[in-house]
Amino acid sequence: MATQTKRGQRAEPPGGPGGMLYEQVAQKLRAQVTSGVYQQGERVPSVRRLSDQLEVSVSTVIEAYRRLESQGVIEARPQSGYYVRTRLWQPPAQPEISNPRSSPTDVSVSALALKVLRASRDPDVLQLGVAVPHSSLLPTRALNGILARIARRDAGRGIGYDFPPGSPELRRQIARRALDAGCTLSPEDIVTTSGCQEALSLCLRAVVKPGDTVAIESPAFYGTLQTIEQMGLKAIEIPTCPRKGVAIEALRLALDRWKIKACLIVPNFSNPTGAVMPEERKKRLVQLLAEREVPLIEDDIYGDLAHSAPRPKAAKSYDRKGLVMLCSSFSKTLAPGYRVGWVVPGRWREQIEHLKYVNTMATATLPQLAIAEFLERGGYDHYLRKTRALYAQGIERMTHAIARYFPDGTRVTQPAGGFVLWVELPKKVDAFELHRRALARKISIAPGPLFSPKQTYRNCIRLTCALPWTETLDRALVTLGRLAEELA
Amino acid sequence: MATQTKRGQRAEPPGGPGGMLYEQVAQKLRAQVTSGVYQQGERVPSVRRLSDQLEVSVSTVIEAYRRLESQGVIEARPQSGYYVRTRLWQPPAQPEISNPRSSPTDVSVSALALKVLRASRDPDVLQLGVAVPHSSLLPTRALNGILARIARRDAGRGIGYDFPPGSPELRRQIARRALDAGCTLSPEDIVTTSGCQEALSLCLRAVVKPGDTVAIESPAFYGTLQTIEQMGLKAIEIPTCPRKGVAIEALRLALDRWKIKACLIVPNFSNPTGAVMPEERKKRLVQLLAEREVPLIEDDIYGDLAHSAPRPKAAKSYDRKGLVMLCSSFSKTLAPGYRVGWVVPGRWREQIEHLKYVNTMATATLPQLAIAEFLERGGYDHYLRKTRALYAQGIERMTHAIARYFPDGTRVTQPAGGFVLWVELPKKVDAFELHRRALARKISIAPGPLFSPKQTYRNCIRLTCALPWTETLDRALVTLGRLAEELA
Repeated sequence: MATQTKRGQRAEPPGGPGGMLYEQVAQKLRAQVTSGVYQQGERVPSVRRLSDQLEVSVSTVIEAYRRLESQGVIEARPQSGYYVRTRLWQPPAQPEISNPRSSPTDVSVSALALKVLRASRDPDVLQLGVAVPHSSLLPTRALNGILARIARRDAGRGIGYDFPPGSPELRRQIARRALDAGCTLSPEDIVTTSGCQEALSLCLRAVVKPGDTVAIESPAFYGTLQTIEQMGLKAIEIPTCPRKGVAIEALRLALDRWKIKACLIVPNFSNPTGAVMPEERKKRLVQLLAEREVPLIEDDIYGDLAHSAPRPKAAKSYDRKGLVMLCSSFSKTLAPGYRVGWVVPGRWREQIEHLKYVNTMATATLPQLAIAEFLERGGYDHYLRKTRALYAQGIERMTHAIARYFPDGTRVTQPAGGFVLWVELPKKVDAFELHRRALARKISIAPGPLFSPKQTYRNCIRLTCALPWTETLDRALVTLGRLAEELA
Repeated sequence: MATQTKRGQRAEPPGGPGGMLYEQVAQKLRAQVTSGVYQQGERVPSVRRLSDQLEVSVSTVIEAYRRLESQGVIEARPQSGYYVRTRLWQPPAQPEISNPRSSPTDVSVSALALKVLRASRDPDVLQLGVAVPHSSLLPTRALNGILARIARRDAGRGIGYDFPPGSPELRRQIARRALDAGCTLSPEDIVTTSGCQEALSLCLRAVVKPGDTVAIESPAFYGTLQTIEQMGLKAIEIPTCPRKGVAIEALRLALDRWKIKACLIVPNFSNPTGAVMPEERKKRLVQLLAEREVPLIEDDIYGDLAHSAPRPKAAKSYDRKGLVMLCSSFSKTLAPGYRVGWVVPGRWREQIEHLKYVNTMATATLPQLAIAEFLERGGYDHYLRKTRALYAQGIERMTHAIARYFPDGTRVTQPAGGFVLWVELPKKVDAFELHRRALARKISIAPGPLFSPKQTYRNCIRLTCALPWTETLDRALVTLGRLAEELA
């Protein structure tokens, strides 16, 4: 929780409760480089000296310098110390606010999406196309160990059905954690699901019917678009800022003009842009929809992956009318393959419980129990602290590689959470062709048109940064950059 | 596989490859009692003598006598031997073929079904209302043990997504076993799902749209009816014989008259009647639908629970046009809480894979791997042999109790597989009222109207026999009988 760190805490190790301290040190030095206190090629203070100056531990400074190195701000010279890089790296500009054509559209991205997904099953392909954390970044051993113990200990319970609303243990833990997102919940408010995807599907089924129009972000996650397509709904894309999310005024105009039956938004670390709606904007969003009695389906799957604590609030925390249906899961944080998600359905509580039963009858029992125990032991917080920093680092390294290897004019988002980057390539680059050529070289990327019902964003791609930094990855980014250059 | 057993095999123990032998011995003696070879109150041959006469082992005869005892045919008298019971028990008559009003109907059984389901979560309630095997009858320790080992051994694999079509190991095992049901499949023909319920939902979504009409059995499983209701479909109930399943001529007339877009049938051990369509009838069903290009969604969830081997064939085995979508799961046989099912979608293979992705993204990984390993080791066949006999016994004992305790005029099905009984009470008995009064006494039953979109079968109930025979269960059936008597 401690983001504010006062001087005098130098004994604290990085990764402890003040684990983000090194980030602040890095930021301070970065600011000094940017403002010219240290010029290109100049030596920055030694580790020991900066440790004294800032009254932080040596290990914190080392961590900060490593980070700045990975960002291309400084470089180590053997036996000599750290120097400001000669060609100082500037992160590329961010993409502009989206400007989709504002009319409801039938959606048809399925065939494309399935192709990308299929490539994701090939173990020889470097997976930059699907938003799945590499298993080395998940608490694999700890969680599977707990699951194995429960399978032996509570065998009868584990093999039996866990009918909706799902495991009471897990719902209790979810209710406890919800306070972090500003939501006061009781276990009875929650229905567990087979991942966030099922939660979103059920919510849509509860509030809209075929032919209805749903307002979404632009760009938006292709899984959601496919659900909308499969249900025979129309989508209206609302202009979305890659930093601050959906434009409220644009949404208001759309609500005035079209018969919008629901709004499906990812207010925190949206996929693919990583946008976070400022709290005030979330509040206005909830109010606007409440005025018109339009339900908001909130996808908070990345909410816990804020790169610095505390995590942003859920839009649900501003809900006074039970109109916000909060959906999330542990698929991005703990265990994709466990298929454990949940929904807080507000006034559709009864209906969602029933839809869950009809759709899959129950959520797998043992995975729910394992996650509940993992949460209860506090393993989740410990894991989150570590992982948030790793994802921030992954994002930075990949941004840096893009700045170095990709064509001039490439724009990249600067997400403050999650682990994906949205890359806007020069206008001429065709993302499908890039995808095709990259796949031939065993690299999978997600082409931009997947993220829009109108299949715009033809010069955009989404890249996943939730994998360990390796030579292979670095070489893959060189290749991607070269391929993009060829197409530019 | 060996159902035909020749004389001279007396060394074979019951439960071995010829595990059903004692059944044949019991049947032989039962026939002699029925035909008057042994009269009421007469002593039947001693165990040793019958063992010599029939050239089977002593333990086989003991097993056969136990069975006949539980069926109320004979009774043991201490130090004296076995005698034909004085009041010889006759199984009650079976219900007649159903005669539903033949017009498409909107379906609305959800509220009722949810009530029954909720009661099933109360551990103090005796669960005769849901078709769930008691955990003591499942291979709980063996299966959970395998799952625990895999969780530790293949940790990374187990925690990761297993995108559609699902685990190759499991699909391989399912393809191998499909031969038992007369189907030659390759793993590529199969998509794994979160239980049979998801398989059926996906199939319906693939072939019908809201407002369409689906032909179903009558009575039919309420989970299916709820799916139909939730999807805004109409159902047309086809007259169904509690022994031989759906009446083909009635279906033909319905197809002539109404625009039926799909047919959803449980050809083997249908729920609730336990009906098995004779092979010739299955073949005609498939041919009839093929002539009209109407897809058949086949629910085979009870197929492996035939009380005697070999199991009946799936309707899918007669499919030449890819029009049959075969759905099943391990929820009734191995592990309800694992949520592992599958579908063989025929010509809708691509579409189902995509719908699965959109609906729940993936099936939980570890449960799939555990079941695959359990199947590979041959544990399933061993378990099935044991359990089929237990379910047959459960069915017989409960039928016997119903004959003794329930009002005169009660009819009961005689299923040759699965573990549920469909009980037709005297006309005046209201199943809802019986359900309410039984629940007040901590006994849950499934009221008949749940099994029909028109909520007919008001004097019927479904009882589950997949639980150990205890004093409590016997007392509960006495209570149920008394309550039914009060309402008759």
